[in-house]
Amino acid sequence: MGRARFITLEGGEGVGKTTNLEFVERHLALRGVRFVRTREPGGTRLGEAVRDWLLGFEAVAPEAELLLLFAARAQHLDTVIRPALRSGQWVICDRFTDASYAYQGGGRGLDPQPIAFLERWIQDGLEPDLTLLLDAPVEVGLERARGRGRTDRFEAEALPFFARVRDAYLERAARFPNRIKRIDAARPLPEVRAEIARYLDALLDP
Amino acid sequence: MGRARFITLEGGEGVGKTTNLEFVERHLALRGVRFVRTREPGGTRLGEAVRDWLLGFEAVAPEAELLLLFAARAQHLDTVIRPALRSGQWVICDRFTDASYAYQGGGRGLDPQPIAFLERWIQDGLEPDLTLLLDAPVEVGLERARGRGRTDRFEAEALPFFARVRDAYLERAARFPNRIKRIDAARPLPEVRAEIARYLDALLDP
Repeated sequence: MGRARFITLEGGEGVGKTTNLEFVERHLALRGVRFVRTREPGGTRLGEAVRDWLLGFEAVAPEAELLLLFAARAQHLDTVIRPALRSGQWVICDRFTDASYAYQGGGRGLDPQPIAFLERWIQDGLEPDLTLLLDAPVEVGLERARGRGRTDRFEAEALPFFARVRDAYLERAARFPNRIKRIDAARPLPEVRAEIARYLDALLDP
Repeated sequence: MGRARFITLEGGEGVGKTTNLEFVERHLALRGVRFVRTREPGGTRLGEAVRDWLLGFEAVAPEAELLLLFAARAQHLDTVIRPALRSGQWVICDRFTDASYAYQGGGRGLDPQPIAFLERWIQDGLEPDLTLLLDAPVEVGLERARGRGRTDRFEAEALPFFARVRDAYLERAARFPNRIKRIDAARPLPEVRAEIARYLDALLDP
């Protein structure tokens, strides 16, 4: 089966990340892949503390937000992601560094240069093998997210914020087409899943 | 009286930082200086949370520790330090970026290059006007700290750790002699205070 792979799922609000994550898990399990499912921010005690903090606290400076997310990421890499990959388990991660470019870079307007510096320093050459970017028009995603009654801090942001997030994601996908696969998440779910399955199978049988 | 000044106190364990901070406050108050006293990590709600995380979670990766401290620092600069200085109040801060070079750089052996990057990005040209480095042989400081019954995570580190912290502080002082004043804290307290008073007075009457 070859070496363990690192897969990340990315996307804005309401694009179906959770349901498609479950599909990724089922698909890999059926193929006999041993994997760890985790998320950012989160995945460690420190990461969950950072997540609670960012969802609950109103006025964090954008630089502080980025640094908290990278602190959680460093801990996550150190205690979850690298050990899993070393032990031969795949890692499926709900959001990773592309989300920092999208939310803190695009959304909050932070200079991407510190993000790139932190990415190089903390990841030290480790990149996802595959990033599934679930993409849908902002209005579609927000409508779905509101239908779930979610009103946390990120989702309470204005429409232009999410438009900038989406643009930044699409820019990343255009820049790294081999790694980041944009998936049109506005289509019916079976079509979305068929496309995801194709990308996963390509990793399994390269 | 001129513009508001930014003063930091630095030093290892048991060098008398708290008692000398109180002296700095009294001395400035007698001269009619309006000031804010604060500390790192801490000084904001986020900073106090970071302080709790670092003291309470057992095994934080060194990179995560540095990033948490800089997240707290970004928030501290944004919500406490810069607003105070802008309003004409001096700022007296118990530890600042030199402590990151000493503890995370020297103590934990992190590459100083990311520290320097974060310093430039977050401080954006703002440097302390005066840094009082209270310096004493490691054995003297640890003996005093133990006498206070302190056994938190930082103080539970081994002697070689604190020797590296001290070396890194002394290296910083040698490199920035105009800003960082090394004060021999192994001397009797009145002598230490007389020296501190001279540095403060030089800021008041330049």
